[in-house]
Amino acid sequence: MKIGILGYGNLGKGVEVNLRDHADMELAAVFTRRPVGEISLQTEGVPLLPYTELKAGSKGIDVLILCGGSATDLPEMSPAAAGCCHIVDSFDNHGQIPEHFRRVDEAARAAGTLAVISAGWDPGLFSLARLYASAVLPSGKSHTFWGKGISQGHSDAVRRIPGVRDARQYTIPLPEALERLREGSQIELSAREKHRRECFVLAEEGADRAAIEQSIKNMPGYFADYDTTVHFVSEEELRRDHGGMPHGGRVIHSGRSGREGEHSHSLEFALRLDSNPEFTSSVLIACARAAYRLGQAGQSGCRTLFDLPPALLSPRDGAELRRDLL
Amino acid sequence: MKIGILGYGNLGKGVEVNLRDHADMELAAVFTRRPVGEISLQTEGVPLLPYTELKAGSKGIDVLILCGGSATDLPEMSPAAAGCCHIVDSFDNHGQIPEHFRRVDEAARAAGTLAVISAGWDPGLFSLARLYASAVLPSGKSHTFWGKGISQGHSDAVRRIPGVRDARQYTIPLPEALERLREGSQIELSAREKHRRECFVLAEEGADRAAIEQSIKNMPGYFADYDTTVHFVSEEELRRDHGGMPHGGRVIHSGRSGREGEHSHSLEFALRLDSNPEFTSSVLIACARAAYRLGQAGQSGCRTLFDLPPALLSPRDGAELRRDLL
Repeated sequence: MKIGILGYGNLGKGVEVNLRDHADMELAAVFTRRPVGEISLQTEGVPLLPYTELKAGSKGIDVLILCGGSATDLPEMSPAAAGCCHIVDSFDNHGQIPEHFRRVDEAARAAGTLAVISAGWDPGLFSLARLYASAVLPSGKSHTFWGKGISQGHSDAVRRIPGVRDARQYTIPLPEALERLREGSQIELSAREKHRRECFVLAEEGADRAAIEQSIKNMPGYFADYDTTVHFVSEEELRRDHGGMPHGGRVIHSGRSGREGEHSHSLEFALRLDSNPEFTSSVLIACARAAYRLGQAGQSGCRTLFDLPPALLSPRDGAELRRDLL
Repeated sequence: MKIGILGYGNLGKGVEVNLRDHADMELAAVFTRRPVGEISLQTEGVPLLPYTELKAGSKGIDVLILCGGSATDLPEMSPAAAGCCHIVDSFDNHGQIPEHFRRVDEAARAAGTLAVISAGWDPGLFSLARLYASAVLPSGKSHTFWGKGISQGHSDAVRRIPGVRDARQYTIPLPEALERLREGSQIELSAREKHRRECFVLAEEGADRAAIEQSIKNMPGYFADYDTTVHFVSEEELRRDHGGMPHGGRVIHSGRSGREGEHSHSLEFALRLDSNPEFTSSVLIACARAAYRLGQAGQSGCRTLFDLPPALLSPRDGAELRRDLL
């Protein structure tokens, strides 16, 4: 299976490095919109090509893994690339998924290619946890928690405050909420009851720290609905203690069964990730395998993890999976 | 969707009661091998029929849910019933799954029916957790823990000891093992390092309790490889405190990524169940929906959860699932 990567940021580098664990796949080319001379790949002997080359033909790529951002890159790139070859993306703007699906589906059907969108962990593995849980216990309710981990969007929001040089924001689930749901409580939780937020801020010299702290804590949409803690740190502390991209979270689904609903059950799916982009790239790779197989079987159009038979994600055949993992 | 139940024990009763949560399904008939006069259903107006009636034809049943045991019932019943209509079973004898699959597949293909086997939580949802995790992090390893919960097989083994009137055995995972795996340790754990066992025994009057305790603790295959605690209790205590069928467990998969494997990730899927048979019946029902849909699409043969697109388990359509759960 010849894999192409489009976009060579954290996600693209994650795909490149993780492909080593997949013996049935080979990195065939990396495409970029940046000047080719500015980039050097970690893998020797793999061609680095301008994005325009992809548009001219799929260059022997079986599946192209799109590693752009959901805000501006993927809405354009995914339909365009699906016109050339089978693709996988990690489009994660939940509210825009129906529209993204429609546009990619149209392009893929027209070109006879197979596209898998929104492959990652949320959307992705967390979505699967919500789907299986609600199919099995339809009377129950799923609660999703994120963290402890770095939220890029919230970190960016803090960085835009005047007087802030740099910042990292952690989203942290509240243990009391988790415990109540695990015990099977059928409760509604407010934003403040589910998560708290913690910010590490590098202020400009002479900046009004009290004003920065108030700007953060009162920021509508981002922080106002949460209990937020603000720490001012040095440049060295920020780099040393908060330089990674850890993330994770959990989906908890509780429901009841029995004649009088007397039995409670809870399902929980949790992730603890040292590197958010590297893990997301691992999900993209497994979905690329499924995209290739469906494409080989003559299928075309857009799919999500909801549509993929789980066995298609694994390199092992059905008999082996039933023997070793069922 | 007209659902039939074959076998009216704990599992069959669980299917009957849980079907109320599924508006797209209707209980059409219950089949039994026991004398029909001995049984009264919880649902009014549903025919209770002898098993022989099923053999004569599918009686308008869209999917038959088999609620027999894996030791002797399902190896015969599942291939036989797959000759009449679409079926789902919860065959859980892991070592025999390949042979069971082969026999059911043959019968279902010959009859043009669709069969889903081994639908439950282990095999079942736990198998899915192992498959998704190993597809995404192939360098990692999955560890499965059971409990805290009642093990039927181990309880039976204690009951067979002379001097024992009744007994319940709990399988309990060891918290230290869970913690080490969650932190991403790549370790091999022995049986004793993963679980301990706790027995509640009602002894016959005048029985040699010390001898019973030794017989339990030294029983090869069941207890000898574990740290086991034995409590002698009264009949009332056994009924009052240990009369339920709680179970659960978790699958933990840890793996690494990065250039030097410097990032560790862990995935965890956990269940806490007040009633093991009622929860298993909930999985059977969701799989019955998938079996029906694949059958309607003209497919035949044997499947497992590994082969079922997740969306087929849910009553909601693709657009709704993408909007609400992805």
